[in-house]
Amino acid sequence: MKISARNVLKGKVVKVTKGAVNMEIILELAGGARVVSIISKESAKALGLKAGKKAYAIIKASNVMMAVD
Amino acid sequence: MKISARNVLKGKVVKVTKGAVNMEIILELAGGARVVSIISKESAKALGLKAGKKAYAIIKASNVMMAVD
Amino acid sequence: MKISARNVLKGKVVKVTKGAVNMEIILELAGGARVVSIISKESAKALGLKAGKKAYAIIKASNVMMAVD
Amino acid sequence: MKISARNVLKGKVVKVTKGAVNMEIILELAGGARVVSIISKESAKALGLKAGKKAYAIIKASNVMMAVD
Amino acid sequence: MKISARNVLKGKVVKVTKGAVNMEIILELAGGARVVSIISKESAKALGLKAGKKAYAIIKASNVMMAVD
Amino acid sequence: MKISARNVLKGKVVKVTKGAVNMEIILELAGGARVVSIISKESAKALGLKAGKKAYAIIKASNVMMAVD
Repeated sequence: MKISARNVLKGKVVKVTKGAVNMEIILELAGGARVVSIISKESAKALGLKAGKKAYAIIKASNVMMAVD
Repeated sequence: MKISARNVLKGKVVKVTKGAVNMEIILELAGGARVVSIISKESAKALGLKAGKKAYAIIKASNVMMAVD
Repeated sequence: MKISARNVLKGKVVKVTKGAVNMEIILELAGGARVVSIISKESAKALGLKAGKKAYAIIKASNVMMAVD
Repeated sequence: MKISARNVLKGKVVKVTKGAVNMEIILELAGGARVVSIISKESAKALGLKAGKKAYAIIKASNVMMAVD
Repeated sequence: MKISARNVLKGKVVKVTKGAVNMEIILELAGGARVVSIISKESAKALGLKAGKKAYAIIKASNVMMAVD
Repeated sequence: MKISARNVLKGKVVKVTKGAVNMEIILELAGGARVVSIISKESAKALGLKAGKKAYAIIKASNVMMAVD
């Protein structure tokens, strides 16, 4: 499947934290930047996400804000 | 100002494309990953965004999806 | 690619409308419901979206609100 | 109340799952497609959502991505 | 129609700016705070939005971030 | 830090409710309007949010819908 989202960032899962319904996933991109994602536990399980697994962070460009110092 | 968004990704603007009302900003993170953002022209101007400028991509964790191959 | 979004709705593109930077896509699901999507022209082109093409609408569950009469 | 969201999809609630703060609602549209929504328990209660109830899924078009096989 | 969004903020439209596909609406709340919304021109027209009209800004609580100085 | 979001609404925290992973924050703006935000407990703690604290609600304009009676 090929998706319209402009941001498809490749990385490796480095941490997974379980909540009651959601799961927090930390993905480390090549170069070291880290991206935090909150998805449902059901989705995380369906994708088999766990530390060490290669995965992608998918973000629609209209959900990315910019800031400067 | 300190913001609640979990993703505050530091980088350098590498490309700016103007639309009628919006602007597309491409930010290169340390390590080379690129993040695309769509913001209003008014906001882009207020922040002084242009190629070469240091900036941050701000993304709420609940707007980040995950995918696997 | 397998994505974490809970809503992956299969349908057929019935209408495509070009804006300056964005494109509006109307997808008809099996059963007749129609879903409207706004994505960048660049993404629509990369996916080859045009009337008649089979496609999916992808929506994160946290972006779906509910209403009653 | 009439809302600006382009997607106002009519259906019937088929499942409701309670989390600690949120609730997951599954709505079946005419024709059989199913849409999953995550809303707060407080909102779900205020709307009286339960299996069998007629309801609408409301989605802003800019939150709908597209994908192809 | 009664919606699940936690933020339904009543106000008066004070400015409307047309783009190619979208429209920017500025709503002044009781007390003077102003909220900016970007919606499609088609939606703005369907709702009859123009300066002086009473309207509501609708925002899902999960789309509201917090910040401190 | 200066952010691209068009809505930066100043107010005072009037209520904080803890969930398992998230926190609900109610902010009262000057003039009395109230805005509800859902953020992670980790973020709320990092910002020191509690009743009485001055804070801002940050909302991207593309996440604000409009409605009329």
